[in-house]
Amino acid sequence: MSAKTTSNIVVLLFMFLTASSSYIHEGNHEGNGKHYKPCKRLVLFFHNILYNGKNAANATSAIVGAPQWGNLTILTSEFHFGDLVVFDDPITLDNNLHSSPVGRARGQYIYDAKNSSSSWLGFSFVLNSTDYHGSINFIGANPHLVNFRYISVVGGTEDFFMHRGIATIMTDATEDQVYFRLRVDIKFYECW
Amino acid sequence: MSAKTTSNIVVLLFMFLTASSSYIHEGNHEGNGKHYKPCKRLVLFFHNILYNGKNAANATSAIVGAPQWGNLTILTSEFHFGDLVVFDDPITLDNNLHSSPVGRARGQYIYDAKNSSSSWLGFSFVLNSTDYHGSINFIGANPHLVNFRYISVVGGTEDFFMHRGIATIMTDATEDQVYFRLRVDIKFYECW
Amino acid sequence: MSAKTTSNIVVLLFMFLTASSSYIHEGNHEGNGKHYKPCKRLVLFFHNILYNGKNAANATSAIVGAPQWGNLTILTSEFHFGDLVVFDDPITLDNNLHSSPVGRARGQYIYDAKNSSSSWLGFSFVLNSTDYHGSINFIGANPHLVNFRYISVVGGTEDFFMHRGIATIMTDATEDQVYFRLRVDIKFYECW
Repeated sequence: MSAKTTSNIVVLLFMFLTASSSYIHEGNHEGNGKHYKPCKRLVLFFHNILYNGKNAANATSAIVGAPQWGNLTILTSEFHFGDLVVFDDPITLDNNLHSSPVGRARGQYIYDAKNSSSSWLGFSFVLNSTDYHGSINFIGANPHLVNFRYISVVGGTEDFFMHRGIATIMTDATEDQVYFRLRVDIKFYECW
Repeated sequence: MSAKTTSNIVVLLFMFLTASSSYIHEGNHEGNGKHYKPCKRLVLFFHNILYNGKNAANATSAIVGAPQWGNLTILTSEFHFGDLVVFDDPITLDNNLHSSPVGRARGQYIYDAKNSSSSWLGFSFVLNSTDYHGSINFIGANPHLVNFRYISVVGGTEDFFMHRGIATIMTDATEDQVYFRLRVDIKFYECW
Repeated sequence: MSAKTTSNIVVLLFMFLTASSSYIHEGNHEGNGKHYKPCKRLVLFFHNILYNGKNAANATSAIVGAPQWGNLTILTSEFHFGDLVVFDDPITLDNNLHSSPVGRARGQYIYDAKNSSSSWLGFSFVLNSTDYHGSINFIGANPHLVNFRYISVVGGTEDFFMHRGIATIMTDATEDQVYFRLRVDIKFYECW
């Protein structure tokens, strides 16, 4: 895990002075003395390869719970309602699965919608690079059909001590029901 | 999901100036410049119908994990210790299951007590009504035998951007081991 | 659960004026008007006995989800990737399993690493002693091979109303794959 990277600009970090992105709904808030523009920002990718009974060596995740009509090697039909997946996904700075990882995304996702494509996320980023060392903890709803989904950054440790924020998740690629790649744009509004 | 409602007072929202309710233990706090009276409040209901092997069409939740002595169509005996349930429950403004939903409650509950009736909750409200659009993220312990249980509101998005608070949960109805309805009184103390 | 304890100094509580512990990495932070030294601190132990098919009476936890190659009475080989455990563990003031509990630690842990020993934690402390009444909610990554691991305290209720902080977890003892004891050093930085 977490090979030290040597690239010069390792993690994309911006001290945003203006809210310029069209999807930073959060940037519009004004108010009572707290930060409404991110005090720190990271854009990272993570890569999920689901175990399907034949890819044990490469898989980074596995179904570990399923409803009575499901099983552990293939997602249930249509919206996969009830499938619970544990993952240990490499985090990279770009969209290349084979780039040197800067950490691991670990936790669970649960397909939690009967009539649409959606999941509930509970996971952590464990970062270990030349630029960052520490964990970031997330929970939230992830409605897959919305281009940009928002989840909560509920805490962090070490370099992210006590941080809070919002992460914007975008599905950057998907292949069959085995591989997907998420782009995660983490905006911290409490940095300590 | 989330039909636009047209009722005039859609979501109960109070800017509480006085802590009047007998069960607002939180309202008693005084202190260091933060809000000790809710800056926003929502009272909502959600409805859980557990899959029992025969009600696939109506069920809004399913057991997806169980201990070795359990199974996926019936809760384990007595306190159901170890049963893990995924849910996709309609949220309504009143206690009527058939009212037009204003969103979905999605996530998991886990029966987590060997010798009492209790669960651990990790879920989100995904609201989509004329009055609210956004998600609210919850975790916490839910000891069923206590009338009013407190869980943490650990974050929110869009209309609930970065919010934190406490939700008071009450079991409003229960029928056999298939249906229950919870009343959730969400008090935000950080509103941004 | 939660016998009233009668010992005179029941819960170790320190208002730290100086950051003296060698592992209080968090104590080094300086900044913008928030607390960087704990406003409250608790040191507690909890005790996990995993169900193995033969210890139903004593077990405090059970595997309820496992990958396709696993089962519910024994952890999967090596790093146990994918095993999901529900627990209802006694919390004590010292490292003695048989001390009078001051509450329960309830929730889930998930072995979430393919090539190392690590878990993801989502749980609550439900405290009920002469000194404390209320719950504390945790999530975070728990890499077992690191001596001191940090997870997030994302909220609390009653005596811990709206609290946030960092918990430092240490494995205090482990026996086979059935028993382990964790020492949890909870430092609150937001106390309300």
